Amino acid sequence: MKTTKTINLNNRPTGKPKLTDFEFSTSEITELQKGEVLLSTKYVSVDPYLRGRMRDTPSYIKPFEIGKPIESGIIAEVLESNDSNLSKGDYVSGTLLWKETQVAKADGLMKVDPNKAPLSAYLGILGMTGLTAYFGLTEIGKPKKGETLLVSGAAGAVGSVVGQIGKILGLRVVGIAGTDEKVKMLKSEFGFDEGFNYKTTENMSESIAKACPDGVDIYFDNVGGEISEAVLFNINKFSRTINCGAISVYNNTELPKSISVQSFLIKKSSLMQGFVIFDYVDKHPEGVKQLTAWLNEDKLTYTETIREGFENIPQAFLDLFEGKNKGKMLVKL
Amino acid sequence: MKTTKTINLNNRPTGKPKLTDFEFSTSEITELQKGEVLLSTKYVSVDPYLRGRMRDTPSYIKPFEIGKPIESGIIAEVLESNDSNLSKGDYVSGTLLWKETQVAKADGLMKVDPNKAPLSAYLGILGMTGLTAYFGLTEIGKPKKGETLLVSGAAGAVGSVVGQIGKILGLRVVGIAGTDEKVKMLKSEFGFDEGFNYKTTENMSESIAKACPDGVDIYFDNVGGEISEAVLFNINKFSRTINCGAISVYNNTELPKSISVQSFLIKKSSLMQGFVIFDYVDKHPEGVKQLTAWLNEDKLTYTETIREGFENIPQAFLDLFEGKNKGKMLVKL
Repeated sequence: MKTTKTINLNNRPTGKPKLTDFEFSTSEITELQKGEVLLSTKYVSVDPYLRGRMRDTPSYIKPFEIGKPIESGIIAEVLESNDSNLSKGDYVSGTLLWKETQVAKADGLMKVDPNKAPLSAYLGILGMTGLTAYFGLTEIGKPKKGETLLVSGAAGAVGSVVGQIGKILGLRVVGIAGTDEKVKMLKSEFGFDEGFNYKTTENMSESIAKACPDGVDIYFDNVGGEISEAVLFNINKFSRTINCGAISVYNNTELPKSISVQSFLIKKSSLMQGFVIFDYVDKHPEGVKQLTAWLNEDKLTYTETIREGFENIPQAFLDLFEGKNKGKMLVKL
Repeated sequence: MKTTKTINLNNRPTGKPKLTDFEFSTSEITELQKGEVLLSTKYVSVDPYLRGRMRDTPSYIKPFEIGKPIESGIIAEVLESNDSNLSKGDYVSGTLLWKETQVAKADGLMKVDPNKAPLSAYLGILGMTGLTAYFGLTEIGKPKKGETLLVSGAAGAVGSVVGQIGKILGLRVVGIAGTDEKVKMLKSEFGFDEGFNYKTTENMSESIAKACPDGVDIYFDNVGGEISEAVLFNINKFSRTINCGAISVYNNTELPKSISVQSFLIKKSSLMQGFVIFDYVDKHPEGVKQLTAWLNEDKLTYTETIREGFENIPQAFLDLFEGKNKGKMLVKL
């Protein structure tokens, strides 16, 4: 029986995850059944939302189990196929286990073409990251040319794409990030109109007001917490807030408290809406098509932070919460 | 020069308003100009939202000025007219000053017919109250037959109408109110399916779960604060929260804090949206028509708490914050 290296959830993290929350083990590779493929992992996506799955609370997706492998977005090469749609040598994208080698059902996988875009792009700009940015901004944000879009976590995987799509759609785009280098990158690489470093600002609400002199029409919220509180003082009448993520509170052990939003929403007839990318699953092909077109027209660019080696997956995940990534964080095997 | 009794804002209340925040004075009645009418006040509406106008902060409507009369929804009789559309003896509804007698421009007034409905109804079920319930529920709530609607402040002016419209539209309707008598009334008078008294419940979230076994699809929020926090634990996937009012925090001197809503909204792909009735001003005639039809078909009923006498207007307003009203609170002159 062949075996493969595997990363399991060792225990549910309390607060900030630690390396000891992960367990390296060896697991068996099962026999290939009909409709299955044997896969070799090439790229592993690590994402803030995985923190939520490490909790034992019901959410939009079921929690990871202790002692079982973690899963995330993965690009893999087909080593053997027992399915008519996939052949040896094909590359696929799917939600797969943190294993070097694994057997999976072919019908949950999407074939990707390494000649149309780099393999890693299918986990980022053409994958969940790009689709999250695209559908959040267009479906909930309902942008109108000339409006001001504010993005938090702006140098992150999703945020940097949101800003670029905002520019394509004719918005004035302002980004908030956590280092001066990232803020510089927002303007030089991603075409943001304005940005500031939330870690060195003295008064968050005033910094937003200064960067958004006409107020905030659309707020794409990746972070929650203090920044999102300060945005409330700057929202315009009929503004829309897209609740995409809340990385600033993912590691909290108690339910975070903030300024109550109700009175702000009433005063400004303002909307807040959460979403996950699965909500728009019927429209995913349309989204991929649009993103691929923009990418090929050089209207979109993306940044990746690529770590190397299977054994570095947990550390790459932990580094997300320290803001050590620029753009999409991936691990290459 | 004729004069009239007038109620001014004496100073901006700190926390809960007091009688001394109001000043009774005598003001002159100006000469009737072209396009103006002389009005005798018949009914004065006192509403929680007026508390917001007593603050010196920008909102959807400008703050009251110290030493100047307060204004609210009023039904008045035309004593003299210098306008071609209104005649002596007509009744009108409008946003008017807290004066026994006043001159006003005719074009901001709506003629009301005392033969089609009692005069007071034009301040309530056929006025701002009814329209707030109707547009909030239909435009933001987007109700689908069979869904569960939860209403806070359910025995209040807006809440009791929201519940009834919910029943007309085929929803399961649950109300939260502050006395056992009010809870009883929700079911016996307004047709709610279920209700509970938040003041005597030990665990708000569990009480909501018990009253809404299928979760909450639509939450019509009149109160904010603790109740709205507890609702977050019970919202369904794709639920909608209508932020109509936040009476529980209107008298706070500091910005209220609550459990952060972001993570809840993300997990449930849930929406929260504030509004004021002016947002739907183009659709008001359509709303009044629908409400009048339902009223005439005996599908809607309403409760009023009517106080008597001009001098009792401030106390009636203060009593709103003690929950002393059932349904719409009015003062009859």
